[in-house]
Amino acid sequence: MRSRLKLIVSYDGASFSGWQSQANRNAIQDHLENALQRICSEPVRVHGAGRTDAGVHALAQCAHVHLPSRRYEPDRWVYALNGILPPAIRVMRCRFVSQAFHARFSAKGKTYRYRIWNAAVLPPFENDRAWHVVNPLDFDDMVVAAKEFCGEHDFASFSANRGTPETNTVRIIRAVRLRRAGPCISIEFDGDGFLYKMVRMMVETLVRIGLNKLSRQDIKARLGHPQKVISRGRIAAPPDGLFLVRVRY
Amino acid sequence: MRSRLKLIVSYDGASFSGWQSQANRNAIQDHLENALQRICSEPVRVHGAGRTDAGVHALAQCAHVHLPSRRYEPDRWVYALNGILPPAIRVMRCRFVSQAFHARFSAKGKTYRYRIWNAAVLPPFENDRAWHVVNPLDFDDMVVAAKEFCGEHDFASFSANRGTPETNTVRIIRAVRLRRAGPCISIEFDGDGFLYKMVRMMVETLVRIGLNKLSRQDIKARLGHPQKVISRGRIAAPPDGLFLVRVRY
Repeated sequence: MRSRLKLIVSYDGASFSGWQSQANRNAIQDHLENALQRICSEPVRVHGAGRTDAGVHALAQCAHVHLPSRRYEPDRWVYALNGILPPAIRVMRCRFVSQAFHARFSAKGKTYRYRIWNAAVLPPFENDRAWHVVNPLDFDDMVVAAKEFCGEHDFASFSANRGTPETNTVRIIRAVRLRRAGPCISIEFDGDGFLYKMVRMMVETLVRIGLNKLSRQDIKARLGHPQKVISRGRIAAPPDGLFLVRVRY
Repeated sequence: MRSRLKLIVSYDGASFSGWQSQANRNAIQDHLENALQRICSEPVRVHGAGRTDAGVHALAQCAHVHLPSRRYEPDRWVYALNGILPPAIRVMRCRFVSQAFHARFSAKGKTYRYRIWNAAVLPPFENDRAWHVVNPLDFDDMVVAAKEFCGEHDFASFSANRGTPETNTVRIIRAVRLRRAGPCISIEFDGDGFLYKMVRMMVETLVRIGLNKLSRQDIKARLGHPQKVISRGRIAAPPDGLFLVRVRY
């Protein structure tokens, strides 16, 4: 009897080639599939809730696998997989789910967090885990401007092409939360879904507003005139500061 | 005019051979001396407040250097040194001090923090930055037992030999603070000074008490009968969880 296992996976993305399987076999998906194959003695495909880019982290990425047999109880799967995976990828927990569950298609929404370190020096422990912005940011301006992203918009102007362009670029952002703790600014986005590089482009824009190089009107204008065709490279905040916090089902 | 610069240095100890200069030139001191030599075009000796072992971290290690000239203002020294140092070592700030100041001999005390992750799975972001203890710890027992360390004691039984044995093994612990935040237990020690591996041996003992393998009476007995000669290897908590938090002057 085959059975479906739901995995909650956390990873430090710094040393991997992103979520999706790559020729170099150094994507998170590759490491998970390798560990599963070693346990199951046959190839097992891992389905993730969504791809994260190289350098992007996850506190709780969600994935499902269709196993040849139940074989172990969920806690034993956690233990067995973590025994093979590199320490920078951990299965935090897992449980058996119905055949109807699909990590990607059943997902109702996601939360991403972006961390910015706004000080002259980036402490070593923040290395690869925050965007180091040296010039002082106007936090209050960023808080006000972030409200522009909330609601249903065509986010085409806040996305990059990944191979074929998305046909539907309308997404709903349910909430944007900004917090400041000393030099650390974190920006959390709840949404029903996100386009490629969308969070990093929204963050880049908010940082430019914090530096007084753009205003909230620029967000309004870009949302009001969605442009799918990209004439020049759009700038996105670096991947280091981005964390997939949770997937909602 | 030569001048004395006080440096506050933070480092992620995971990839270095400890503080003190080594033949492999991969100690924190080596990296600092290399950066200073490149700026000053002559060898500059770095004096640290104390050595930390391989794998041990620092939020604010303190050091002083005797520079050939003032050359730059303090902020420029920070900038110039960080431009050469690896990102896992950062000069957080620095300032000129009187010739009487000595990072080691002027130090009046230090604070160390030890982090324990008490859960089935160690999240990837805690890798190399906490001791992963899987079995549940009795936190309240640890809090009570930790009080035994406070005050003036001969800590010979809580130290390892490093080359020549210490002649004076009496130290004063001013406070021990335990905090629990979810699965993370942190133990902070304020003391006038610490023997080699002393913090890690105190932590190892507290963890064994938390696992009900030892009791607070065992601390009393070991402090009451200080033994400098070590017949068997004494066990110390791993370096990964240890952070030098500050040096008091």
